Amino acid sequence: MKNEYDVIIIGGGPAGLTAGIYTSRDYLSTLIIERALIGGNITNAEEVDNYPGYPDGINGFDLTAKMHAQATKYGAETLTADVTGINLDGNLKNVHLTDSIITGKAVIVASGTERVKLNVPGEKEFIGRGVSYCATCDGPFFKDKNIAVIGGGNAALYEAMHLSKFADTVTIIHRRDTFRSTKVVQDKTLNISKIKVLLNTVVDSIEGEDKVKRLVLASTVNGSRANLDIDGVFIAAGLRPNTQFLQGLVKLDKQGSIAVNQIMQTSVEGIFAAGDVRIQSIRQVVAAAGDGAQAAFHARSYLEK
Amino acid sequence: MKNEYDVIIIGGGPAGLTAGIYTSRDYLSTLIIERALIGGNITNAEEVDNYPGYPDGINGFDLTAKMHAQATKYGAETLTADVTGINLDGNLKNVHLTDSIITGKAVIVASGTERVKLNVPGEKEFIGRGVSYCATCDGPFFKDKNIAVIGGGNAALYEAMHLSKFADTVTIIHRRDTFRSTKVVQDKTLNISKIKVLLNTVVDSIEGEDKVKRLVLASTVNGSRANLDIDGVFIAAGLRPNTQFLQGLVKLDKQGSIAVNQIMQTSVEGIFAAGDVRIQSIRQVVAAAGDGAQAAFHARSYLEK
Repeated sequence: MKNEYDVIIIGGGPAGLTAGIYTSRDYLSTLIIERALIGGNITNAEEVDNYPGYPDGINGFDLTAKMHAQATKYGAETLTADVTGINLDGNLKNVHLTDSIITGKAVIVASGTERVKLNVPGEKEFIGRGVSYCATCDGPFFKDKNIAVIGGGNAALYEAMHLSKFADTVTIIHRRDTFRSTKVVQDKTLNISKIKVLLNTVVDSIEGEDKVKRLVLASTVNGSRANLDIDGVFIAAGLRPNTQFLQGLVKLDKQGSIAVNQIMQTSVEGIFAAGDVRIQSIRQVVAAAGDGAQAAFHARSYLEK
Repeated sequence: MKNEYDVIIIGGGPAGLTAGIYTSRDYLSTLIIERALIGGNITNAEEVDNYPGYPDGINGFDLTAKMHAQATKYGAETLTADVTGINLDGNLKNVHLTDSIITGKAVIVASGTERVKLNVPGEKEFIGRGVSYCATCDGPFFKDKNIAVIGGGNAALYEAMHLSKFADTVTIIHRRDTFRSTKVVQDKTLNISKIKVLLNTVVDSIEGEDKVKRLVLASTVNGSRANLDIDGVFIAAGLRPNTQFLQGLVKLDKQGSIAVNQIMQTSVEGIFAAGDVRIQSIRQVVAAAGDGAQAAFHARSYLEK
């Protein structure tokens, strides 16, 4: 490992790995920094059906392992480390790790999002086996099944509406007595006959064997408990962009997503963003990969200027 | 085939096929209209090295055939036809073909670009075997080789600059006595020692056996001819977006590319654009595919509204 790179990529999911394929194939020295597992959130996906080029589907771990091999083949280096901050030194960007600093001429932030977890028993255990955080990704796997959506905002209700196309029943479970979602979205969603609602209710645990079989629910009013038999549960409790280390440096929106223009440039010249961490992301592997290619392309233009 | 679809996709390259995977997997009735060969321009690529997920590279035809199989698997239909225009009928979009009309609730335009050809002997014959229209795609295949770039605009000079990282020599061939490129780009490019310039020169033919071996050049001043031995030739004579059928309907830029906002929506609600045909496209397969997913996602939101 060197102390200085043409391009430092923060995050080793599909966006970061694709950026790394592009920059390293263009002979730009490239370091990809990932704090946990190469591949990002999608490594949890048993089967990715909608990544173009794999008509029979592909396991999320395998797909991102291929992307990683591809970036490595062209010379991108990978480092497991936590990024704690970035400071500017003229045109250079100093990327601070827990115990060292690495300098980049350009930086691509592809650090993704954390799904807000329920933190209940069974949630982690059944990810990819009935527990999902993405209706667009996993909805079609639940044709004619009974499923639940946990959450009360617009995202939760839109997911329920979308899932009702596949599922036999969709039960929306929300801890409060009213939805946070807008009136118009509620009107559209709650009129769908397949959709049921349980308010004042929280999930105590997710149970099953090979796959999810039921939720254990608790009333927030009187604490009474009940079981709900379901085949799948979509947790729509929100997303937290991994941008704490960028506070005060680049422009973020209220949720903490990175503001970018159409060429993936952030508010700081030479710092780009790609994938789930940017505003308006649809949080799909191929879209993140496309972002990564764009950010890399424009990082190259920036370095050639 | 029906007369009405939820989504009509114009263009069967990576952007259109990916949009089709997404819309059909979401149970939206989908028709993909392609006027020529499913797969688009990339079908000419012998080896695509930078599509994430194929670390050993994949033939362009095979890659898009897989994408097509994937869209078909989820129910997307494909039609070979020329689109001659679109007219709006309330919220519906009537897509005019040579001898019929098909109606879509939403339309995704992914009709790509035509590369401006030199139209000289050997050009078509050697595509993918020494003739290229994309430095980002094919530059790395020409490490330590002698290559030529044809053109005189900013794009041509930037391509030459980029290619000089790989090639041994890069000869820029331009038919006029001055470059159209801006002064600052000329200064940066023409100072690179690997880059040579031939002005007042046109390509008469491209010759070789298995692969390109030489250009036959002609002076535009006195018609004299000369051979130039090269291993590859990058034609940077411009791109023509396939948007003639959209004139007067959606906003285009001066070159004819479709103006889109960050969610791939054009100036007309319910009409989206994706891939090489939109403004700011980097003309890469994965970026086009990412666009297609985004356009499909937002077409779905439009239809759910």
